[in-house]
Amino acid sequence: MTRIDFQTEPSRYRHWRLTFDGPVATLIMDVDPDAGLFEGCELKLNSYDLGVDIELADAVQRLRFEHPEVRCVVLRSGKENVFCAGANIRMLAKASHGHKVNFCKFTNETRLAIEDASANSGQPWIAAVSGSAAGGGYELAMAAEHIMLIDDRRSGVALPELPLLAVLPATGGLTRLTDKRMVRRDRADVFCSTEEGVRGRRAVEWRLVDEVVPPSTWEAKLHDRAWAFAAQSDRPADAKGIALTPLQREFSDGGVTYPHVRVSFDRVARRADVMLLGPTGTLPGDVAGVHAEGAAFWPLALARELDDTLLHLRLNEPTLGQIVLRSEGDAAAVLRVDELLDAHKDDWLVREIRLYQKRVFKRVDMTSRSVIALVEPGSCFAGTLAELLFAADRSVMFAGTRSGDNRGPACVQLSVLNFGAYPMGNGLTRIATRFLGEADSFARARERVGEPLDADAADALGLVTAAFDETDWDDEVRVMLEERASFSPDALTAMEANLRFAGPETMETRIFGRLTAWQNWVFQRPNAVGEQGSLKLYGSGLRPNFDTERV
Amino acid sequence: MTRIDFQTEPSRYRHWRLTFDGPVATLIMDVDPDAGLFEGCELKLNSYDLGVDIELADAVQRLRFEHPEVRCVVLRSGKENVFCAGANIRMLAKASHGHKVNFCKFTNETRLAIEDASANSGQPWIAAVSGSAAGGGYELAMAAEHIMLIDDRRSGVALPELPLLAVLPATGGLTRLTDKRMVRRDRADVFCSTEEGVRGRRAVEWRLVDEVVPPSTWEAKLHDRAWAFAAQSDRPADAKGIALTPLQREFSDGGVTYPHVRVSFDRVARRADVMLLGPTGTLPGDVAGVHAEGAAFWPLALARELDDTLLHLRLNEPTLGQIVLRSEGDAAAVLRVDELLDAHKDDWLVREIRLYQKRVFKRVDMTSRSVIALVEPGSCFAGTLAELLFAADRSVMFAGTRSGDNRGPACVQLSVLNFGAYPMGNGLTRIATRFLGEADSFARARERVGEPLDADAADALGLVTAAFDETDWDDEVRVMLEERASFSPDALTAMEANLRFAGPETMETRIFGRLTAWQNWVFQRPNAVGEQGSLKLYGSGLRPNFDTERV
Repeated sequence: MTRIDFQTEPSRYRHWRLTFDGPVATLIMDVDPDAGLFEGCELKLNSYDLGVDIELADAVQRLRFEHPEVRCVVLRSGKENVFCAGANIRMLAKASHGHKVNFCKFTNETRLAIEDASANSGQPWIAAVSGSAAGGGYELAMAAEHIMLIDDRRSGVALPELPLLAVLPATGGLTRLTDKRMVRRDRADVFCSTEEGVRGRRAVEWRLVDEVVPPSTWEAKLHDRAWAFAAQSDRPADAKGIALTPLQREFSDGGVTYPHVRVSFDRVARRADVMLLGPTGTLPGDVAGVHAEGAAFWPLALARELDDTLLHLRLNEPTLGQIVLRSEGDAAAVLRVDELLDAHKDDWLVREIRLYQKRVFKRVDMTSRSVIALVEPGSCFAGTLAELLFAADRSVMFAGTRSGDNRGPACVQLSVLNFGAYPMGNGLTRIATRFLGEADSFARARERVGEPLDADAADALGLVTAAFDETDWDDEVRVMLEERASFSPDALTAMEANLRFAGPETMETRIFGRLTAWQNWVFQRPNAVGEQGSLKLYGSGLRPNFDTERV
Repeated sequence: MTRIDFQTEPSRYRHWRLTFDGPVATLIMDVDPDAGLFEGCELKLNSYDLGVDIELADAVQRLRFEHPEVRCVVLRSGKENVFCAGANIRMLAKASHGHKVNFCKFTNETRLAIEDASANSGQPWIAAVSGSAAGGGYELAMAAEHIMLIDDRRSGVALPELPLLAVLPATGGLTRLTDKRMVRRDRADVFCSTEEGVRGRRAVEWRLVDEVVPPSTWEAKLHDRAWAFAAQSDRPADAKGIALTPLQREFSDGGVTYPHVRVSFDRVARRADVMLLGPTGTLPGDVAGVHAEGAAFWPLALARELDDTLLHLRLNEPTLGQIVLRSEGDAAAVLRVDELLDAHKDDWLVREIRLYQKRVFKRVDMTSRSVIALVEPGSCFAGTLAELLFAADRSVMFAGTRSGDNRGPACVQLSVLNFGAYPMGNGLTRIATRFLGEADSFARARERVGEPLDADAADALGLVTAAFDETDWDDEVRVMLEERASFSPDALTAMEANLRFAGPETMETRIFGRLTAWQNWVFQRPNAVGEQGSLKLYGSGLRPNFDTERV
């Protein structure tokens, strides 16, 4: 299969159109049936595949960074009788288990990014449902802050996955029904087992949509709602957006190189070595400087490159089971960037950068590869970069210096951003999650913000998993990586999905924990994916032949 | 396969011994290798199968009901060098997917029952780990309130499932590490990927056990701890237990009959029809009367019979995908029982009955069959029995009377017990979970406690899913049941596991949600269960050949 690319831009969109009217942007879904990612999977009725969602994710991102003037986003369909028919079934039937799982993960992350925009960016989304919103189509609408449904006796919402396909509505569908829209569970049960879904007043009564609107007043009401939402936004009135310029990347057989991220693949060891480079050159001295740098501002550039790295590894390099993170650079410069990000957190662009970093770190949490951070002399795991030590499954630190290397001992440094800027999906910071059972350890770490902490100090504070000096380093690291590479990839995925999410669950973690885990199970069951299973037989006119045993 | 029976008693135990010393009971695990449930699966090293756990569950139950004088339970091993080696691997390798899943579910429920005894019955458990506690062995220890580990350079705790078997520690293991014992996630990662586990001081430092004790003071310290826990218990000093007399049951091809529960199977429709009979005869007038009736007291008898029904259906009747609940009897009598259970809730026996009912309702929540309640004329879904309407996936109510039936219209009645006595695993009552998004509905229902609510009233209050009168009843019910029977059993299981648990997650719900769902996925993956998978090759000396793709 050819490489799936996560970079795009509006001029290259095949499936979406963006229009702007003052503070209101309208994103029109108009999927080109012939521009699917997979040969032979025609994307009828606004059904989508990963390619469609990559464009959506790009639009969500650009609306935030390039359009500070946009204070409300209206999501609607460019087709006559359908809002969106959900994920393309032929694609699901053809795709490998791994592609299905990663497709769902990415679409889930995109919908959460929409909710993040509504909740934290002053850019609330309205779903204007005209025509049928079925399956993933209704799930997409549920990501919006407000759902309007036209009351034309045709349009409606449905989650027909169970009766039609014998799988779950797992792009957050079941969880948003119970946790976001708080639909009564027996009504949710009826709704999810009714192929034709629900229309009109009942859709409001059951809390499935927020309002139904007659066709005669539809456009006017939609305009009013959008402008009313826009009026409440805290985005600046006359700011200028920054351009998310194309990433500079070079792919080769052996890796990917970006300006601030260098990825090299060890295919025998099944490992991706990721080197993160700290800021160089003169840093902006104030918020105007940050705006002037735009997409070149180091934390934003790094976040975009790391994000692209993670997505590339997920979809295009499934056999690289380990991601080893290293860093190189000037820790003091990283901390100066954190100071800027902290001092100007109310600036709309700085806010966007912080929110994007938060989402990239969450993408690390959700990446089903073992993540190991190595803190070595010359590294710059400070502040925002140190966050990766707490996102990693293990972080190992070099104690003392290396012979022949005149750089000083490795240090870790915390900044205030580690204590609030980057909450995990569970709502807690990574440090708070790490120290759930150790309030003292949390307080001790908090007190050391800004101090360079060498291996002994970091280990004593519980900030790293272990520390080794030069005598043991090479062997310890080699054995750790080799041993982990010998384990079952599936068991590691499942273990990491449990250990990474200690503590409270939220709608977001429940989507990936409970819902996705069950869907992945269903995606392995013969009743769905077997030769006689529902996905294989979909559209053939034949009825699937179910094994009737309950497990 | 022969029927798996969940009823047993101490005189028939093959694997456990109970001894008593004043307020302290000691439960000794001494598994008979030759008494396994499966032919050819020798239960070496205190490894267990479902048969072993059925005896454990029985012991937990009898300690609570038959031994009010027991104020602390010590769990230890009868073997020389091993505490418990966990679930028997050959059994896991041989068992069907359905058996594996239901085995894990039951063992999880038993461990939660141990925690319920510690938290709510004044009967805290101590795990006295001498020898190796590995995998399910350590998971069993983690169910105790307090874990003591002997410091003899041999004994230790381990979760070697991932390195050794390529599956998860899924009898709550991963979740209790992070949520109960709050082990730091990177330490948990190291621990779970280290076959040999952790011993001595490090086990305390990593919060894996509560204390290590040298062999010289082991017995004395254990005695002191047990008596210290006992001293804090609120169980009565000189009460007399009640005997959990053998259930009266009659199994036939067509069903099971108990005194208060009649189960009939419709194998063509793949349905179990369960009729619950209300109390008859004279009810006890006071708490002394409750004690005098003992196991014959209606709510306790019904709970035991319903519990046995659920377990029988789960393990022995996997193709019966629907459980249809009906009731028959005097609703006023049910409410009088609720009044007794409410007025005397501080009595130790009444407390045990209420806690047991709570656990049985949770067993309904966790049963992977569609549960449909039908409220018909002559039924007695009142108070405690009405709780089943909120545990069901759907509850449908008959409006008005039936021609030729001189009984009055069906009514539902709430009691105070619906508002606190039976929390779900998520910590909320079923009514609160039902009305998460409708605070008004919750308050309205609360106001109607004690009132007979006919179909219109119950429907308007949101207490049932739908109501139909005689014209539509037969057709509506038939179509609903037939339609559901046509759906994929797997998709139903996964959907129900999502919709039943709206709202907050707790350690308990996370065990069944996140952890179990992932384990069920792993249990479907070729890397674990394929011909070259880890479970199949275990003990063969061959290394499993893993598919190296991460999904």
